[in-house]
Amino acid sequence: MKPKSHIVNLPVYQPGKPIEDVKRELGLDEVIKLASNENPYGASPKVREAILSELENISIYPDGGAVELTADLAKALGVSSNQIIFGCGSDEIIALLARAFFVPGDETIMADQTFSVYKSNADIEGAISIEVPLVNGTHDLDAMLAKVNDHTKIIWVCNPNNPTGTILSEQELTAFLDKVPADVMVVLDEAYCEYVTDPSYPNSIPYLGKYPNVVILRTFSKIYGLASLRIGYGVGQPDVIKLINQVREPFNTTRVAQAAAKAALKDQEYIANCRTANAAGIVQLQAEFDRLGLKYFPAHGNFIMVDVCKPAGEIFEALLRKGIIIRAGHSKYPTFIRVTVGSQEQNKAFIHALEQVLEEQKAQV
Amino acid sequence: MKPKSHIVNLPVYQPGKPIEDVKRELGLDEVIKLASNENPYGASPKVREAILSELENISIYPDGGAVELTADLAKALGVSSNQIIFGCGSDEIIALLARAFFVPGDETIMADQTFSVYKSNADIEGAISIEVPLVNGTHDLDAMLAKVNDHTKIIWVCNPNNPTGTILSEQELTAFLDKVPADVMVVLDEAYCEYVTDPSYPNSIPYLGKYPNVVILRTFSKIYGLASLRIGYGVGQPDVIKLINQVREPFNTTRVAQAAAKAALKDQEYIANCRTANAAGIVQLQAEFDRLGLKYFPAHGNFIMVDVCKPAGEIFEALLRKGIIIRAGHSKYPTFIRVTVGSQEQNKAFIHALEQVLEEQKAQV
Repeated sequence: MKPKSHIVNLPVYQPGKPIEDVKRELGLDEVIKLASNENPYGASPKVREAILSELENISIYPDGGAVELTADLAKALGVSSNQIIFGCGSDEIIALLARAFFVPGDETIMADQTFSVYKSNADIEGAISIEVPLVNGTHDLDAMLAKVNDHTKIIWVCNPNNPTGTILSEQELTAFLDKVPADVMVVLDEAYCEYVTDPSYPNSIPYLGKYPNVVILRTFSKIYGLASLRIGYGVGQPDVIKLINQVREPFNTTRVAQAAAKAALKDQEYIANCRTANAAGIVQLQAEFDRLGLKYFPAHGNFIMVDVCKPAGEIFEALLRKGIIIRAGHSKYPTFIRVTVGSQEQNKAFIHALEQVLEEQKAQV
Repeated sequence: MKPKSHIVNLPVYQPGKPIEDVKRELGLDEVIKLASNENPYGASPKVREAILSELENISIYPDGGAVELTADLAKALGVSSNQIIFGCGSDEIIALLARAFFVPGDETIMADQTFSVYKSNADIEGAISIEVPLVNGTHDLDAMLAKVNDHTKIIWVCNPNNPTGTILSEQELTAFLDKVPADVMVVLDEAYCEYVTDPSYPNSIPYLGKYPNVVILRTFSKIYGLASLRIGYGVGQPDVIKLINQVREPFNTTRVAQAAAKAALKDQEYIANCRTANAAGIVQLQAEFDRLGLKYFPAHGNFIMVDVCKPAGEIFEALLRKGIIIRAGHSKYPTFIRVTVGSQEQNKAFIHALEQVLEEQKAQV
């Protein structure tokens, strides 16, 4: 019963408290969760209809190849169907890439800090994560390039970066891709791309033609509002997608998720409205942070990382007691919290609570 | 971009044709799928309600630990919550066991033939599958024991066995478990256990107390009728479950699946009715096979493997043209087809088509 030696000391995922538990334990009627970068407006109303009409097939296995959804997405992106793979969130595509490509001793380069799932999957496969500090909350692509050697297998670039929310421009990214050796994979994680309104942000899909070593990750969990259904995707060269398919479970996405994603993809007007509302929410929150004298990283996703100039864990706890869940615990940014851009009312409630918490902290000193 | 060397030549999953495609291509109004051992009666009506009330949370991540469902299941099984792990079908638990335990060169023992996912995951991890021929369609436990050596890490026992449908008795299984070395894991895959009515079939849950090396796999895809939602589980010692959790994606089952499984688990009256209807379907099909002079393995799940005394692929194609999808392609049983026990009407339609096909084949000779 001996497991792989390098997994024995990996951290176990600790499930977060359900909102209901937070309400009960703290005696709160309402709890606002701005912790997981979910879409505060939910999914397109068309999604509900699509799910309802799928429920009659609940006992029938899903289409393992997600043929119809893949065809729709391929058309929308302008790629071939064999360039797309769906997973249980883009999380699963990260896990599959790790499972297909990493052997113990491989090196993999990522920002410090960035999305934690890159490193956790490298750890599982015994690959070595080379973490390159962010500069002003932004990927330091030159420093990452300098770490490339014969052992490097994958470079992870999260754009917008989670948790800082910063972006790399088209120019920065292509200059980087021009220099990455052809045998090193670059994974562009674009979970939040649909939220970006900055014109310097790249449309990366055409890169696939020029840089065969690029794999793009996207998801239906964020702007599409389908986080509960676990569906994301990877786009790359057919030969790379084939390799990932070789380590994929035959039925890795649900029938409900496929139907919902198809409907969500079609309703681009809804997505445009969510993008506009989110941009307004960023302006709203940034104005409030300015008023409070708090510094923040330029936000391009649906979340903002703001420096509360106090131990973030304390602010997290104090906000929780007021019924607001945000994210703290970023080791490189111990005084920053990450807050999801909510609806105008949610943002107002968050700012109100934050202002109170900061006042209380001041009073304690 | 070099993948793991041992995955390069693995087969890629080929998605099956959607029923709609079969209808269109063959000009058929109705197609009956008896190929995937799905529940012909669907899920409990209570599942639909549970899903509908969950749709308001569609944009919110699921509870990664499936806390409520785990508590309900732990109570139903009489185990602790920390002995249970949920996955995207029990398929995912197989993949996670492989990912956590196998290192290249490990050996793993399984029947030939049995559920193919054991071997495909061993292949991905570079473990060597030792396949031990079935005897009369049944696991040869003595021969499997004889293959145990210092390299053996996991023995897979599928009970009832897929595709043959045979079972191992309590006596046979405990005699085997008594002899398996304590450091070799035995995975009891019981995907079809709820269908079994034979009194010699073991209730394996109490084994967990006596044999710490046992892990039990079960699923909501079969009798519970939730195949489309991808939710299954593993039950084992807390330390083993912890190791599997260490390689699990944080959000590997959907909110809809968790809610559906909770509701399905509660409706045991529905499950009992499905079991009774399935047992009647087995009697119905066996009587027809007897009438047609066809031999079959004793069936204990919701499927029967029957010898059609012709190349199974030809019978598969001929049945498909008549709108019946069954399963062929079992390398060790080239003249056998595996048919799911459907509703009385579906079984009748299948037998009618099979009889026609066998007559046509006879006429051609």
